[in-house]
Amino acid sequence: MLVGAYYYPEHWPREQWERDIGNIAKMGFDFTHFGEFAWAFMEPEEGKYDFGWLDEAVEIASKNGLKVIMCTPTPTPPAWMAEKYPEILLTNTDGRIIRHGTRQHISWSSTKYREFTEKIVTKLAERYGQDERIWGWQIDNEPSHYGLKEDYGDAAQVRFRQWLKDKYQTIERLNDVWGTKFWSEVYSNFDQVRIPNEKELVLFVNPHAMLDFKRFTASECASFVSLQYNILRKSILKEQWITTNFMAIYDAVDPKLNDDLDFITWTKYPVEGFNQGIGEQGFRRGLPYDVGFGNDFFRPLKGKTAAMELQISQVCWGEYNPRMYPGARRLLLYHVFAGGNSFVCSYRFRQPTFNYEQNIIGMVGTDGVTPSDGGEEYMAFIKEMKTLQDNRPKATKKPESYFKRKSAVIWSFDNIWATDYQKHTTQWSYRNHHAGYYNILKSFGCPVDIIRDCDDFSAYSVLVAPAQELINTELIDKFSKYVKNGGHLVLTCRSGAKDQNGHYWEAKRAEPIWELIGAEIEFFDNLPGNCWANVRFGKQDFKWNVWADVLSPHKDTAVLATYVDQFYQGKAAVVSHKYGKGSVTYIGVETSGNGLERAVLKHIYNQAKIPIEDYPNGVIVDWRDGFWVAMNYSSEPFEVAIPKSAEILIGQKTLKAADVVVWSE
Amino acid sequence: MLVGAYYYPEHWPREQWERDIGNIAKMGFDFTHFGEFAWAFMEPEEGKYDFGWLDEAVEIASKNGLKVIMCTPTPTPPAWMAEKYPEILLTNTDGRIIRHGTRQHISWSSTKYREFTEKIVTKLAERYGQDERIWGWQIDNEPSHYGLKEDYGDAAQVRFRQWLKDKYQTIERLNDVWGTKFWSEVYSNFDQVRIPNEKELVLFVNPHAMLDFKRFTASECASFVSLQYNILRKSILKEQWITTNFMAIYDAVDPKLNDDLDFITWTKYPVEGFNQGIGEQGFRRGLPYDVGFGNDFFRPLKGKTAAMELQISQVCWGEYNPRMYPGARRLLLYHVFAGGNSFVCSYRFRQPTFNYEQNIIGMVGTDGVTPSDGGEEYMAFIKEMKTLQDNRPKATKKPESYFKRKSAVIWSFDNIWATDYQKHTTQWSYRNHHAGYYNILKSFGCPVDIIRDCDDFSAYSVLVAPAQELINTELIDKFSKYVKNGGHLVLTCRSGAKDQNGHYWEAKRAEPIWELIGAEIEFFDNLPGNCWANVRFGKQDFKWNVWADVLSPHKDTAVLATYVDQFYQGKAAVVSHKYGKGSVTYIGVETSGNGLERAVLKHIYNQAKIPIEDYPNGVIVDWRDGFWVAMNYSSEPFEVAIPKSAEILIGQKTLKAADVVVWSE
Amino acid sequence: MLVGAYYYPEHWPREQWERDIGNIAKMGFDFTHFGEFAWAFMEPEEGKYDFGWLDEAVEIASKNGLKVIMCTPTPTPPAWMAEKYPEILLTNTDGRIIRHGTRQHISWSSTKYREFTEKIVTKLAERYGQDERIWGWQIDNEPSHYGLKEDYGDAAQVRFRQWLKDKYQTIERLNDVWGTKFWSEVYSNFDQVRIPNEKELVLFVNPHAMLDFKRFTASECASFVSLQYNILRKSILKEQWITTNFMAIYDAVDPKLNDDLDFITWTKYPVEGFNQGIGEQGFRRGLPYDVGFGNDFFRPLKGKTAAMELQISQVCWGEYNPRMYPGARRLLLYHVFAGGNSFVCSYRFRQPTFNYEQNIIGMVGTDGVTPSDGGEEYMAFIKEMKTLQDNRPKATKKPESYFKRKSAVIWSFDNIWATDYQKHTTQWSYRNHHAGYYNILKSFGCPVDIIRDCDDFSAYSVLVAPAQELINTELIDKFSKYVKNGGHLVLTCRSGAKDQNGHYWEAKRAEPIWELIGAEIEFFDNLPGNCWANVRFGKQDFKWNVWADVLSPHKDTAVLATYVDQFYQGKAAVVSHKYGKGSVTYIGVETSGNGLERAVLKHIYNQAKIPIEDYPNGVIVDWRDGFWVAMNYSSEPFEVAIPKSAEILIGQKTLKAADVVVWSE
Repeated sequence: MLVGAYYYPEHWPREQWERDIGNIAKMGFDFTHFGEFAWAFMEPEEGKYDFGWLDEAVEIASKNGLKVIMCTPTPTPPAWMAEKYPEILLTNTDGRIIRHGTRQHISWSSTKYREFTEKIVTKLAERYGQDERIWGWQIDNEPSHYGLKEDYGDAAQVRFRQWLKDKYQTIERLNDVWGTKFWSEVYSNFDQVRIPNEKELVLFVNPHAMLDFKRFTASECASFVSLQYNILRKSILKEQWITTNFMAIYDAVDPKLNDDLDFITWTKYPVEGFNQGIGEQGFRRGLPYDVGFGNDFFRPLKGKTAAMELQISQVCWGEYNPRMYPGARRLLLYHVFAGGNSFVCSYRFRQPTFNYEQNIIGMVGTDGVTPSDGGEEYMAFIKEMKTLQDNRPKATKKPESYFKRKSAVIWSFDNIWATDYQKHTTQWSYRNHHAGYYNILKSFGCPVDIIRDCDDFSAYSVLVAPAQELINTELIDKFSKYVKNGGHLVLTCRSGAKDQNGHYWEAKRAEPIWELIGAEIEFFDNLPGNCWANVRFGKQDFKWNVWADVLSPHKDTAVLATYVDQFYQGKAAVVSHKYGKGSVTYIGVETSGNGLERAVLKHIYNQAKIPIEDYPNGVIVDWRDGFWVAMNYSSEPFEVAIPKSAEILIGQKTLKAADVVVWSE
Repeated sequence: MLVGAYYYPEHWPREQWERDIGNIAKMGFDFTHFGEFAWAFMEPEEGKYDFGWLDEAVEIASKNGLKVIMCTPTPTPPAWMAEKYPEILLTNTDGRIIRHGTRQHISWSSTKYREFTEKIVTKLAERYGQDERIWGWQIDNEPSHYGLKEDYGDAAQVRFRQWLKDKYQTIERLNDVWGTKFWSEVYSNFDQVRIPNEKELVLFVNPHAMLDFKRFTASECASFVSLQYNILRKSILKEQWITTNFMAIYDAVDPKLNDDLDFITWTKYPVEGFNQGIGEQGFRRGLPYDVGFGNDFFRPLKGKTAAMELQISQVCWGEYNPRMYPGARRLLLYHVFAGGNSFVCSYRFRQPTFNYEQNIIGMVGTDGVTPSDGGEEYMAFIKEMKTLQDNRPKATKKPESYFKRKSAVIWSFDNIWATDYQKHTTQWSYRNHHAGYYNILKSFGCPVDIIRDCDDFSAYSVLVAPAQELINTELIDKFSKYVKNGGHLVLTCRSGAKDQNGHYWEAKRAEPIWELIGAEIEFFDNLPGNCWANVRFGKQDFKWNVWADVLSPHKDTAVLATYVDQFYQGKAAVVSHKYGKGSVTYIGVETSGNGLERAVLKHIYNQAKIPIEDYPNGVIVDWRDGFWVAMNYSSEPFEVAIPKSAEILIGQKTLKAADVVVWSE
Repeated sequence: MLVGAYYYPEHWPREQWERDIGNIAKMGFDFTHFGEFAWAFMEPEEGKYDFGWLDEAVEIASKNGLKVIMCTPTPTPPAWMAEKYPEILLTNTDGRIIRHGTRQHISWSSTKYREFTEKIVTKLAERYGQDERIWGWQIDNEPSHYGLKEDYGDAAQVRFRQWLKDKYQTIERLNDVWGTKFWSEVYSNFDQVRIPNEKELVLFVNPHAMLDFKRFTASECASFVSLQYNILRKSILKEQWITTNFMAIYDAVDPKLNDDLDFITWTKYPVEGFNQGIGEQGFRRGLPYDVGFGNDFFRPLKGKTAAMELQISQVCWGEYNPRMYPGARRLLLYHVFAGGNSFVCSYRFRQPTFNYEQNIIGMVGTDGVTPSDGGEEYMAFIKEMKTLQDNRPKATKKPESYFKRKSAVIWSFDNIWATDYQKHTTQWSYRNHHAGYYNILKSFGCPVDIIRDCDDFSAYSVLVAPAQELINTELIDKFSKYVKNGGHLVLTCRSGAKDQNGHYWEAKRAEPIWELIGAEIEFFDNLPGNCWANVRFGKQDFKWNVWADVLSPHKDTAVLATYVDQFYQGKAAVVSHKYGKGSVTYIGVETSGNGLERAVLKHIYNQAKIPIEDYPNGVIVDWRDGFWVAMNYSSEPFEVAIPKSAEILIGQKTLKAADVVVWSE
């Protein structure tokens, strides 16, 4: 796995470039990363391009033996563009035009902005597309509008209407799907339709309109990235790859829509002062979910991924901004390695002296020469990577029991968009619900893919499909087939209640999945946040208050857990039945800390005789290319069960906080 | 008491109408409810009306023996109207035009909207005003703008100025009443006056302007409803009644302003995930105040009321949305019955498959045929109603001691508007303060009317006038006369401090009521929310921190309670004196849980030898038409003291949670 | 010290003026205060002036022996001005124009508003500038826009660009200072620059731009005040002084920029329901910091100050609005006296009956004649002042040890603006950090000046410079010189990290101050708000979680405190070294309740053999003109160590809550 660092030549005096870029190479990095955000330097006046400075930087990198990732600068157009063509700008939910000065403040729906994008990308492709010093391309950066999420401007309005026309053809069809008979919402033509926006309504947004607008936004983002991809791909070297980096854990765009790209990379800052991590000092280490989700969500998209932007050290945007735990960077880097990434790149080589991100610690300080704590850990890691490369096991026999428990969790943007808008309880969070299951599988030591419902299920012994509230009969059939062929399917609360437009079925609640799950779903319930109820599995009680589906099992369906109290005391909360060669389990409840869910899943693997581990919270063990890697995010030491016959290549088997051990068997 | 259910034929395929409406009848309902929100179907294009579909629905209802309530569809104009005449739209405090898509998003001040309203109501009156199948009419639905409360648009601005001109005649008079000498606010003409809006001011809103704007808003609402009433009344059958349904507990409009209507009905959803109710599982039952306020606030307006929209089951807009407690719907229904309502109607017969309210459970599910838990309870209740009708006591002698304790609480919109804007402490809430007294009276088993200060007081043995901060000398005289004739008046903190324009008197604090209450009010005090002080009544101390009026009694005035601490330790908090044939008590403090207030009121009834009960929190006992009805909202069982000679018609005397017992004596 | 009261003749009927103003004199006041907010009465129509009413009021005051402070009415232009010239109005961050109706809603950048201001001030100067009955002048009132803070309107936009042009001359220089290379922010001309506003950006504001905008806003305020000063000064009597009253504790404007004024006065309401004070009932007394900061921040500006607006009693804008503690007004008045103020004036003589501030208690009530509790205390205080005047010690020998410990704390608007925008932890507050040190010095009984870095340091034995994050080499040199000459300098966390533009140095962290402090600053750290770490001084541990600079001392630098835990356990938190004749101490940590900081400062005074006291929290002892004044804001009694030889003039040596004792030695 190669390791690189961002460098912004345009931020520093020309006379420091040789020294700085030379130091990147001396510290052991394999590559650097140029051009991101540099549009004002590439096109200082409209139509006047300047790449001379970039040529020089590329040349210095090359002389120092560094590969170069070249970026398109589209998140940050020059000031003259916003001044002369304000129609390129984003508009927020307040109807306010968003101004020049930060990034991603432009409208993907703006024709003018797409024109400027085409031109600059074409120029870059012409200049560097045949240049072998360029290793690959990054389109844009973290495509999104960050916290603003969506665009409410005129251009978006126009294109949204067109998107709806393309989708529905007639206004009658839109009226049907959006259920506009309700409250006389009925539209007579597409021009009456506005982007749904709670800020301009007396009450709530039509949930079907909201879902379409979320889909539209993701689609606009994807088509903006594809526009650039198509320009690049038709004129650059075959050897040069093209990617973009999406933010891991960001829900307004869908990376899957860009599987035209060669592969998709990701960004993550696990220690940014918003969570407490695990145990003492956990806030300095982040959660295993942070890098884990990056690995397992992006890798399955194209079978390949890389961490384009990984945290080095202290940042500046958290509620508080702690220093990282000693070893925490190395921990993240090994997690990235173990997760199968092709390379890792980090922002940024040199800490800037100015502007908003001046306190994001780099590999070296603002003086340009003194390595930070992060820089030191990166250098150490790079050396260890070389050790590993030298000790690469010859026969990389895949570990059987590890791959036997290979599992998947379905991710669904439709369902995060639909259920997070219609939460039914403020405590509902699709992401938390989903993460609970993902974390359980990782605690069992499973290799996990986070996949889509359109993906092939056959590779996985267990498939968890959390909160599939919007579903369609094709998917129900696909689930059935998977199970009949021996798969073990886990469906969770809210599932099956609605069709893919978000309509309840003209039937009983979730009736279309009753046969699949071997039970009826009578109703659901939520509790106040300060009130707890219990659900019993075996002899153990678990607390819940977010969601309960109350179930009525069919004959031959086993009841695994029941409600201990409430007026439906004794009713089923979890049911399971054999179905074809496999099994289907329905977990109708979300418990505090997901304790019940973990117990039920363990039961499922055990029943299916799939071997699993039982790691404590914070310990992750993965296998890559013949190497076992065990990592500890918690504050409790953990003794890794390494066979005596194994060779420990890095570290030791007692894992302290932030420790890593690598061995081969 | 008749029972009905809403049905929206326009939401369902024509071929299901016979089945659905047939089922309404089969489940025992007496009537149905059509047309609300159906403007897009009644006038699909401007000036093109279509009532054919509605004719069919009415015909099916009639064939099934169901009466029909016909609604005017004015909360939801069609999309074409907002598109072509945007001046009909509401504007919020941000100056933002509110768009089509939900309901009540229109400006009552818009001339154009009033024109369209006249036309559609006229058409409906022509079509159904002579139709005997139509039982009565509902104008609009929940007249209000919900959370937006007021309209800040151009049309409202114009009409507010006109309203001020009508009220004040000259700008000098407005300047006087609004106290505009302060901060050079002085206006030279009415066109300078803007709707008061904190969002466009550096500091605070002029409280006198705010009060007038609140009055104006209520007046606009009332005149919009009256516009429709007048059209209907002049052309429909005398037998057809006309009402509208206001929301119980909504403070931006005043139903009293519409006592031109035949009677006024109300809406209430007690279990909507915002309060915890009483005791274990109380969040599934709501509070007795919910239906109680509906009954006792709306009935005195015209001597007759009905519950137009009562909750059936789980809804979708709460912080959490729990299922209701088994029996809770029946509890609410009996409470509505006991409160003297003419009928009860519930939203809605069939749960919709689409749009925002798709998870509001109906009498039957989305399949159209399966009764919900709510539907089952309604069917049972309807049967019980028939039992009661069959067992109607012949001689309905009014129970003496019950009517002897008939009491009233004054409700004042001027005072909720004035004191809730000038709270003096964020803990102040006129509604909470008022509800405290109402609940105490109900715990004594009193029949209670919530009346206005313009109403006749003579029917009530005790009259509570809470927080009458704005007062006028006429009212003080009316109070005096009431007391002199033997009434027992209770005034509470803040009372008497200001005139009806919200000016302090050019006098000592509240001096105009000193004679009435037999004491001086020296000053008031508030405490921090985390700090508590004590007030002593007899040997018992009660905690307070919201409000304390510090009193100085006149000779011959008894001090009932004194402050135990603070720098005014030993000063009077509650005073009482005889006055003519009655008594006046001033309770200057609001205590935690209203414990002191309850003790003082008990003392007053005892002194006056008015017999009262002493029910625990959550138990309500009322009498109607010869039936005693006892209901339990709490989780603690309660033994109802039913005389041995009485006949228990429904239930048993030990009331469990959500239980009801009905007997006749 | 003279004592006065505000009176607004325009608020009351003409026939009450003689009585009211006569009563002001009878109650013992020395002066009154007219004209503030009276523009609508001075210029009821554009260009038509009316001062007749004011002439009468001045005459009545004069007849009653009262001096008059005359105010310019610029916070409150008449309604006709906003109507006819809306360009005079302020615009908020939402881009919304702020309307007539309160005060300070105008744009200081508006040319039109400045024209009107010139005219009215000229008229007032002509009318009263030669009038010996006028004692002095108050320009405007509390210059600010209160919570709105800044102006985002067109006029401000234009003048901000001009201000930037004046400052930077070329756009290249602005680009450098603002670090616009980052994210392609680069400007090609000044017209592209907009007022920085987070509400129109996707992410964060450029911190350098923000700092300049804060400086610009303060500068606009100052130039608006100076405009008035210059008009007045050139035509009024030499004997008439000119001031304005800034709010103590308001951070959007800088009174220092108006040291063209004769002196600067201040406003303070310590008991306004936002803090709990010290001990039982502390919320009724305020904090000693409230008046203390007023005294010690404003007095050093010109060597003279006065309290223009001091709280009398209950107000109306707090979260809750308690009555004041008996004696609390007297406590504040003595604090003002002890702090060296020339006079004190209070808002307002008579409580108004109308509009927003109707519940601000005056010296007399709304009836115009009954003294309030506050009025009673003022009368008593005025008498005591006369006692003191009669007992003025003849030889006012300055107490040696008191003046030996005279100390200063540097206040820096650049640093409050910079660090409060780039907090790095939501817990950071420059004001709290600064107040911590100020309070420690007062607890040592020091006379304290709050000064600027441009002031002379030589008068102070100890100089505390808190959080000097932005610094320049001149200041570092000035600090060095101060210390070499024997001063004791205390620098605190964050200091030295950036240049005056807010750029990190192209060097190691804070490297330019390393020699001065005798240590290196390795890095800083923040903790989550619910997580605490310890730092040890001697044998005592102190909790911290806001900020930690981790230090590495040079040889010969003493480590006074070390971190007890975290990964930098054992590293230095506080270091101190001798430097020339003095010493420099660096306190790199902010602890809970500032316990460590107090212990370290005590150590510094002790080492330097500067005599200090050790007063408990809430006790303040100051010396003025031969009088010692001790005051107690806490609820705990305190025994003041008064020498037997001293004469107690007021009070007694055991200070109860809110008590004062005055003696001479």
